Amino acid sequence: MTIAIVGIGLIGGSLAISLKENGFAKRIIGVDVSQENLDKAVRRRLIDEDAPLEQAISQAELIVVAIPVDVMVHVIPKILDQIKPHQVVVEVGSTKESLLEGLRSHPNRGRFVSSHPMAGTEYSGPEAAIPNLFDQKYTVLCETERSDPDAVELVERMFRSIPMKIARLDPLAHDLHTAYISHISHISSFALALTVLSKEKDEDRIFELASSGFSSTVRLAKSSPDMWVPIFRQNRDNVLDVLDEHINQLSRFRSLLIKKDFDTFYQLIQEANSIRKIIS
Amino acid sequence: MTIAIVGIGLIGGSLAISLKENGFAKRIIGVDVSQENLDKAVRRRLIDEDAPLEQAISQAELIVVAIPVDVMVHVIPKILDQIKPHQVVVEVGSTKESLLEGLRSHPNRGRFVSSHPMAGTEYSGPEAAIPNLFDQKYTVLCETERSDPDAVELVERMFRSIPMKIARLDPLAHDLHTAYISHISHISSFALALTVLSKEKDEDRIFELASSGFSSTVRLAKSSPDMWVPIFRQNRDNVLDVLDEHINQLSRFRSLLIKKDFDTFYQLIQEANSIRKIIS
Repeated sequence: MTIAIVGIGLIGGSLAISLKENGFAKRIIGVDVSQENLDKAVRRRLIDEDAPLEQAISQAELIVVAIPVDVMVHVIPKILDQIKPHQVVVEVGSTKESLLEGLRSHPNRGRFVSSHPMAGTEYSGPEAAIPNLFDQKYTVLCETERSDPDAVELVERMFRSIPMKIARLDPLAHDLHTAYISHISHISSFALALTVLSKEKDEDRIFELASSGFSSTVRLAKSSPDMWVPIFRQNRDNVLDVLDEHINQLSRFRSLLIKKDFDTFYQLIQEANSIRKIIS
Repeated sequence: MTIAIVGIGLIGGSLAISLKENGFAKRIIGVDVSQENLDKAVRRRLIDEDAPLEQAISQAELIVVAIPVDVMVHVIPKILDQIKPHQVVVEVGSTKESLLEGLRSHPNRGRFVSSHPMAGTEYSGPEAAIPNLFDQKYTVLCETERSDPDAVELVERMFRSIPMKIARLDPLAHDLHTAYISHISHISSFALALTVLSKEKDEDRIFELASSGFSSTVRLAKSSPDMWVPIFRQNRDNVLDVLDEHINQLSRFRSLLIKKDFDTFYQLIQEANSIRKIIS
């Protein structure tokens, strides 16, 4: 099958590697606003060739859209305007409701599938694409009831070929849950990085002492604002709710330190420890 | 050399593995308040034998103390009371000033060396001990000017044998910097775990969707309150300062979301990105 991948960054590029390796894609055409990214992608053999969007669409059976969520809102309607009835378009963005709301009345909505492969790293661009990024992870499909059954079937087959597992959430539930299990982690890391940088900026040496625990909690702070600002913009209300709750939790720890109430502090840590049951 | 390790948990047990493997220790005697831990440590061959504290001290040339920092304050003076002039005691705790202040007038202060090997995991107990935990990491030595030169020399030789790198900080600087590069990461993780657990407690399934970024930021929330509450108690003032700063940084993000000022939000993320220069 010929696949066009629009946006050859971390996600698009890593999908390209997986789908080419496992034979699901026979030929991959890359589309990107950056010719530099396309050249890198060709040199890394992430894609077989690059092409302008219209030309790529005309040649592909499946079009994968992996660009920042604010750009998707404009680009996906144009792609849907242009496709033939046998073609399928799938997007892999991190927020759903505002995109899907805008597409509900599109005459070709049935040819479109909304998905969110739940994997990533703090790096971006075609140089960040890696094999096995998605192996055994979940992909969330949203609002499949508005997609044609054959389109959903093709997209499921693509993700299962990687292999990924499939879950379904409605767009509002998706955006709420990802605020908790992904978006807040990024804000927490950005804020932690700024906290430490504000204090230790003149003391680079001190970071040599930092242990792996520190790196673990701040590594997401390397993430690209080009990807994340549009996510926070589109999911602002949910992110604000979670951020309020997170600041409340930190304020509880603060107030216990002020009161020197270390017994309750101990109990809170014990409660937090129950995350053990949930993450490996 | 015969080494007594007091506290056969993550740190003491991992040191035991390294020092036995590289031949620095010929024989390791384990001491622990928990006989169950000692039995595990013998079965895992972390230690050659276990013994009560007094007996272990009488047989060891070097005594490594790896117990929670609140217990150290009581146990180290007793060990120093008992040692002979050729013996050396080294502690490996995470806070310094309150311990060292209490030891400054001890007649055997010279035989004692204060160190902080900057490595760990979120797990605890002898079952958490792993090889290579300390490889190529830094150990901070504190207040070596109050230790006898031969005692410092022996402890440096021990850490370099692992191999670890050596840095020096005075106790106040140590406690301030570790608040930034270690202690705040733990509070941030505990609070993030509580934030997510409070919301998602009835929806275990949702965590299957969580990506590696989420796990990375909350993994420290599995850390033991028995180790961490004494650290927060002893380093309360520094931790409070850093926590205030962290809450301020989060509140800036919150206020930008409320105002929908995504340009400044973008700039803050770019500033946070400069952590790239610092952590690998």
